[in-house]
Amino acid sequence: MDLHLTNILNDLAKDDFHAYLLTQFTNVEYISNYKPTSFAFCLIKENPVIYASGMDMELACRDSNIEVKEYESFEVMIKDMKDEGIKKLAIEPSLAYSTYARFKDSFTIDSKTYIDKQRMIKTPEEIEKITNATEIAQESFLQLDILNNTGSEKEVAFDLVRYMIENGASKESFDTIVTSGAESSLPHAVPLDKKLNQPVLIDWGCIYDGYCSDNTRTMVYTETQQEIWDIVAEAHDKAIKAIKPGMKCCEVDKVAREIISDYGYGDNFIHSTGHSLGLDIHETPGFSTKDETVIEKGMVITVEPGIYLEGEFGVRLEDTVNISRKGNVIGDLPLNID
Amino acid sequence: MDLHLTNILNDLAKDDFHAYLLTQFTNVEYISNYKPTSFAFCLIKENPVIYASGMDMELACRDSNIEVKEYESFEVMIKDMKDEGIKKLAIEPSLAYSTYARFKDSFTIDSKTYIDKQRMIKTPEEIEKITNATEIAQESFLQLDILNNTGSEKEVAFDLVRYMIENGASKESFDTIVTSGAESSLPHAVPLDKKLNQPVLIDWGCIYDGYCSDNTRTMVYTETQQEIWDIVAEAHDKAIKAIKPGMKCCEVDKVAREIISDYGYGDNFIHSTGHSLGLDIHETPGFSTKDETVIEKGMVITVEPGIYLEGEFGVRLEDTVNISRKGNVIGDLPLNID
Repeated sequence: MDLHLTNILNDLAKDDFHAYLLTQFTNVEYISNYKPTSFAFCLIKENPVIYASGMDMELACRDSNIEVKEYESFEVMIKDMKDEGIKKLAIEPSLAYSTYARFKDSFTIDSKTYIDKQRMIKTPEEIEKITNATEIAQESFLQLDILNNTGSEKEVAFDLVRYMIENGASKESFDTIVTSGAESSLPHAVPLDKKLNQPVLIDWGCIYDGYCSDNTRTMVYTETQQEIWDIVAEAHDKAIKAIKPGMKCCEVDKVAREIISDYGYGDNFIHSTGHSLGLDIHETPGFSTKDETVIEKGMVITVEPGIYLEGEFGVRLEDTVNISRKGNVIGDLPLNID
Repeated sequence: MDLHLTNILNDLAKDDFHAYLLTQFTNVEYISNYKPTSFAFCLIKENPVIYASGMDMELACRDSNIEVKEYESFEVMIKDMKDEGIKKLAIEPSLAYSTYARFKDSFTIDSKTYIDKQRMIKTPEEIEKITNATEIAQESFLQLDILNNTGSEKEVAFDLVRYMIENGASKESFDTIVTSGAESSLPHAVPLDKKLNQPVLIDWGCIYDGYCSDNTRTMVYTETQQEIWDIVAEAHDKAIKAIKPGMKCCEVDKVAREIISDYGYGDNFIHSTGHSLGLDIHETPGFSTKDETVIEKGMVITVEPGIYLEGEFGVRLEDTVNISRKGNVIGDLPLNID
């Protein structure tokens, strides 16, 4: 049996649960290799099983490493579960309330992060896929020749996605951000039909073999913009340098946040310092003020400090760190694009 | 106050709830016009409010029609809510269990579909946006010149997305499906790096001003494929013709399903006959065997019967129906592409 499954079964046994219900597509994929395209219920127990939608049966039977049954109704599932002696059921934290409500009168239920705990630690194969995704995304970024690009934000975003797909990605890993001028003070700005203004902030990534990449670069032009860029770059570099297994995630956030605060921009750093990625673009743990998770080898977490000056501009710089080796930034794209 | 808000407040009052909690991005957008890019908690009550993430404050304050506060913690939100006398709280069905768990000891909670009930009935402005999205998507499909196209599935999918964006869409409304040959028997096939085989099935749509479109065409080449196509086309046409306000959704499904069953392919029609769309690509109600919702004017629902022959091929034909006028298919792309 797969090591992740064994680990989760051990977690279940330790807490006296009889089964673990997963429905989030990437959780089902992580466990079974089958990527649902419609609803699916994955039940982890001694003999794990997926109840797949009729329309996904061909795909699920083709790709899944674990048994697949066709979903008929909640009543049938609940009867199967009771027949097997399941009384105490663990659920994933993201389970929809309406699904929980179908099960709550039949089982004793609590939400558990067993699956997230497995997904936190990437295997060498997973890290290789994230690395491939990052390299494709960075190579594609360079093809943009951004300093000489005269397109609109929307055109540049579109070209970047095109290059990533031409270079082997299956798709972008999130809505590509190409923003410039005053709009760059919105951390998740939407590309507009306007010509690139200054500065230019690009936050992009792709999916390769199921795994995500994530980077941000900001190209600055004026002295004021450069001053802010230098502060963000210092926070970026020092946070990456500080990372080591055994530290808490919040301590890395603190390194970046203190540097930016010391320069007087603490209130303008309006998000966490970073997040894990893998099958999803946002995974746990994250470098946030409240995340006490202890950093371990195998984690892959972004570092993305930013300063946002409303009505003026924003600067963010982001790289993805493979914590298997100290300070091992994935990819080799310089921070300073010139 | 906005009519939707008034209606929801009436629903709340009728069921003795003091507030309604929404977090799904499109629900927040529907109520406030602010499109979250990070978590947000929208609380509908006499004086509705959104607790937005710090990183979204600039955007939320710019776009929201209702009051915005910066989210600090669940504790602060719960205290605010208790101070206002909230005891009985309605939640959206899709709320994550982990969020529900934060509130469950402080309030009496039940999930309610008040918001879905509002979103079911589209305003003329919403229908216009869906129509625009559909027209852009259909015009872009024709630009593919699919019968003479020699690209790979992946290339055709990419070109289709490019045309949609060039023609004014903000993005595709779901992962574009371009599939051909034996893979077309997977209803949600992923485009491959292989040259188009026969038949070719394309399921595509775009987003225009926030609203989705959805169509499917299948181009068949052999007599066997044409026979199946004819059955699916008959189911498609007769289901659309049958639709009228006052019927139940499941009755429309029955029309399509019986035709396909009568030809002996009932087991090969492995999904519902259709789904609503709007801000989301899949909304309620749907033309499914179990959906007893009564069809009303203002609903916009797809009709997409299909027959899937594992190992051989699949055929699906899909149009979107504006139920404001009987049989009013949105867009004018013929079923038969030649």
